[in-house]
Amino acid sequence: MTMTLDAARGGEMVESPFLAQLVAVIRAEDSHGLWDDKTNSEILAEFIVTAEERRSMPIIGDPDPELIWRMTKFYDAIGLLVEKRTGCMASQMQKMHHEGFGRVVLIAGKLVVVSKHLRDVHRFGFETWAKLAEAGEKLVESAVATIDEFPEAARA
Amino acid sequence: MTMTLDAARGGEMVESPFLAQLVAVIRAEDSHGLWDDKTNSEILAEFIVTAEERRSMPIIGDPDPELIWRMTKFYDAIGLLVEKRTGCMASQMQKMHHEGFGRVVLIAGKLVVVSKHLRDVHRFGFETWAKLAEAGEKLVESAVATIDEFPEAARA
Repeated sequence: MTMTLDAARGGEMVESPFLAQLVAVIRAEDSHGLWDDKTNSEILAEFIVTAEERRSMPIIGDPDPELIWRMTKFYDAIGLLVEKRTGCMASQMQKMHHEGFGRVVLIAGKLVVVSKHLRDVHRFGFETWAKLAEAGEKLVESAVATIDEFPEAARA
Repeated sequence: MTMTLDAARGGEMVESPFLAQLVAVIRAEDSHGLWDDKTNSEILAEFIVTAEERRSMPIIGDPDPELIWRMTKFYDAIGLLVEKRTGCMASQMQKMHHEGFGRVVLIAGKLVVVSKHLRDVHRFGFETWAKLAEAGEKLVESAVATIDEFPEAARA
């Protein structure tokens, strides 16, 4: 997969299995092909939140449903990559408080392979493509390591 | 703990560590002592849903927040009994769809010790005290068995 350079926001685009998976997860929702003309970096644009944007984001009130949707897709992509690498399907559960903190887990069998306590959900996003890719890869790797450590629980 | 007989609804009250834990969980919320005069069976009355009541309950729309609260207390009581018996603290996560189905899990460490797929959340309740006690005990026993099977994951 090639990604368009977008130096203005998010810095240099990076090659990343995680970003490719995230694009695929989001394009899968586009059943009418409305986003066919969008580049991958356009598809993922909202995952980038620059330092300046972050400062201007209000953290009061319920997090935007679109933001929750985006966060869900982020963890869906992680679950799918984990499945590709281990064969274990991981399903997602979220516990979100309207103050913007919460918890997300990915569960494979009886094993919690990702458990992330969230603060600042209102500002979910990454400064650069490199940071988005790195955050995803790190969670995938940690999930795979957890499955390697407790394979029976993951397949229970 | 002694419980008052209430033959009319729920049949005969039973001695049960689970019911005692459930009463304790609910009384813990009564910080102003407003329920001090209530008997234990009054405290738990809403957990009983007779066959006739069940038939008359609508299953359309979002489940009543009080019902979700009650269900949460049910699983909180299970988590606390599991902790008493194993030393592993279990935290609860729910995923509830407004159509009345969903999933509840209790997580200890990296281990899912209870995982319950729910249908018919609108009608959450038990015909008798005996059935309520049995449902709770069964989930506790199964959780304890899961921890015995995967002790390292439960303590991870």
